[in-house]
Amino acid sequence: MGGDLGPRSVVPACIRFLQRFPQATLKLFGPQTQLQDLLREFHSSPVIERLEVVPCEQVVTQQCNPVQALRRKRESSMARALQAVAAGEADAMVTAGNTGALLALGRSILGTVEGVRRPALGKSLPAETGSCFLLDLGANIDCSAEDLLQFARMGIEAQRVHTGKRQLKVALLNIGAEPHKGTEEVRRAAELFKAQPDIDYFGFVEGHDIFTGVVDVVVCDGLMGNVAMKSAEGVIRLMGQKAFTIERKSSFKRFFGQLAIKLLRKWRTQVEPARYNGASFLGVKGNVIKSHGGASSEAFYRAMITAKECAEADLASRLSKALAVSHG
Amino acid sequence: MGGDLGPRSVVPACIRFLQRFPQATLKLFGPQTQLQDLLREFHSSPVIERLEVVPCEQVVTQQCNPVQALRRKRESSMARALQAVAAGEADAMVTAGNTGALLALGRSILGTVEGVRRPALGKSLPAETGSCFLLDLGANIDCSAEDLLQFARMGIEAQRVHTGKRQLKVALLNIGAEPHKGTEEVRRAAELFKAQPDIDYFGFVEGHDIFTGVVDVVVCDGLMGNVAMKSAEGVIRLMGQKAFTIERKSSFKRFFGQLAIKLLRKWRTQVEPARYNGASFLGVKGNVIKSHGGASSEAFYRAMITAKECAEADLASRLSKALAVSHG
Repeated sequence: MGGDLGPRSVVPACIRFLQRFPQATLKLFGPQTQLQDLLREFHSSPVIERLEVVPCEQVVTQQCNPVQALRRKRESSMARALQAVAAGEADAMVTAGNTGALLALGRSILGTVEGVRRPALGKSLPAETGSCFLLDLGANIDCSAEDLLQFARMGIEAQRVHTGKRQLKVALLNIGAEPHKGTEEVRRAAELFKAQPDIDYFGFVEGHDIFTGVVDVVVCDGLMGNVAMKSAEGVIRLMGQKAFTIERKSSFKRFFGQLAIKLLRKWRTQVEPARYNGASFLGVKGNVIKSHGGASSEAFYRAMITAKECAEADLASRLSKALAVSHG
Repeated sequence: MGGDLGPRSVVPACIRFLQRFPQATLKLFGPQTQLQDLLREFHSSPVIERLEVVPCEQVVTQQCNPVQALRRKRESSMARALQAVAAGEADAMVTAGNTGALLALGRSILGTVEGVRRPALGKSLPAETGSCFLLDLGANIDCSAEDLLQFARMGIEAQRVHTGKRQLKVALLNIGAEPHKGTEEVRRAAELFKAQPDIDYFGFVEGHDIFTGVVDVVVCDGLMGNVAMKSAEGVIRLMGQKAFTIERKSSFKRFFGQLAIKLLRKWRTQVEPARYNGASFLGVKGNVIKSHGGASSEAFYRAMITAKECAEADLASRLSKALAVSHG
């Protein structure tokens, strides 16, 4: 029920997902009449048999803050979907809804993996060579060096699932590569990272390094990660916009412009958020994927693919093992 | 002498600047033989008469930290150029060198404008409609609500110089638009901003809003600003890279691809850092412009244009007046 488009992006994504994966089954949580209306046009499709509508009249709005979510939204579609994961009735949960509410309800309903201090949001982003997993994306504002170390371990496991690579380089996001740069806490984190035999620590990197592929995992607090990801999204949107504006202005290049725009769109899909949609809520006991709030049906489908990857690899259990090993 | 290319980007930019602006004169600070060598090919150009080489054998390297710069680099090309501004022998100074050293030497040599608590780095960035001035870009790590308010006032004056607009909307960068989001300090800043009759405060914005043009000035601490700007730069570079890779792969679209790439390059210039090069060091007594370290000659020329704009508008004095009014 969340995100800018709500079920209008979710329902077509579900149909496509079921068509693509004949073994998959889905549960759709939300107001029954609204969902049934949207499902009507797919009535004759055989895949519909693998989709169960679970009626929930209560929804979490974008205005709802985490405290309100915990107090008053226990019967919401978001809470009910998380309960299905907690009960083992679902292998993963995907939502485009209110992030703050999801983090609060997720922790409360699923509980955290043993040893995890603070769950984090992380996501694989496109890079010149391969991809780069960035976390935290906004779940934690003030982070200690120890928090950042846990984020690194969780990020490594998640990126292993996404890329299949075993050996991953880890860096800390900072405002410069030199060791004297940044806050005291990030410099303390650098010392801590260096001391871990199981972590291939690269050093400090800056914002642009997220997109070069120089490292596989970039760790930072939720403020920096959120700003990095959203600024990158903003500038991609801007490029599409500017291209469109110039195209309309230029009469001389109209013909080649059309072709160029087609190619540009294709290129954009390589880096645009839709292709890399789906942030993982790492450190809770279950696979929870947060789709971008502005997700189209195509983008929501991508988030479902991410969820499938995490569920198949049993990421939540892998995190639990990885953190247990590092503790003792 | 700073930046990846050093005088190889600076010297051609200077020649172009002098050709474009017949009233301008330039002083070039650096090792004499090196600069003379590079200037030789422009020997016959009449503009060379308006360019004075000021010999400085000492240079600030990228490894030099701010404390070392203050102690040992008082005779460097960077310090000498700042001294020329302090002595009124130059209206503005441009460098692509070590940012930390520049901030330390700039404060020490020029002094801060009366009433300024902490100088800041800020820059006009491209937006869907117009541009957006973002600060601080990395000069200050921990910022109080009062620091952020001063950044806002400085950013407004700078953006007035860049756009000519009088009425400017100001926002605080945060991880969400809702009032409960972010650190205690940013929420305190929001209350402070609301209480200022001279500031048209918009509210919190997220990273992507920097590039939409919804506001004219975005204020944040140096960590967030640095990460926002550098992530945006990284993703622009990535898009160029991906475009190039796909182009080489596709044989079918090679012909149209070439044309399309030309157009894409043109579009990129609309948003790429080179076009928006030149961050202002606001709050010191003089116009100091920091060029991107990776600046090409074209980009360095842009930073010089920014310096010219700031000098002509006497931005440093305007800041002083704006802050004096707000204090009394």
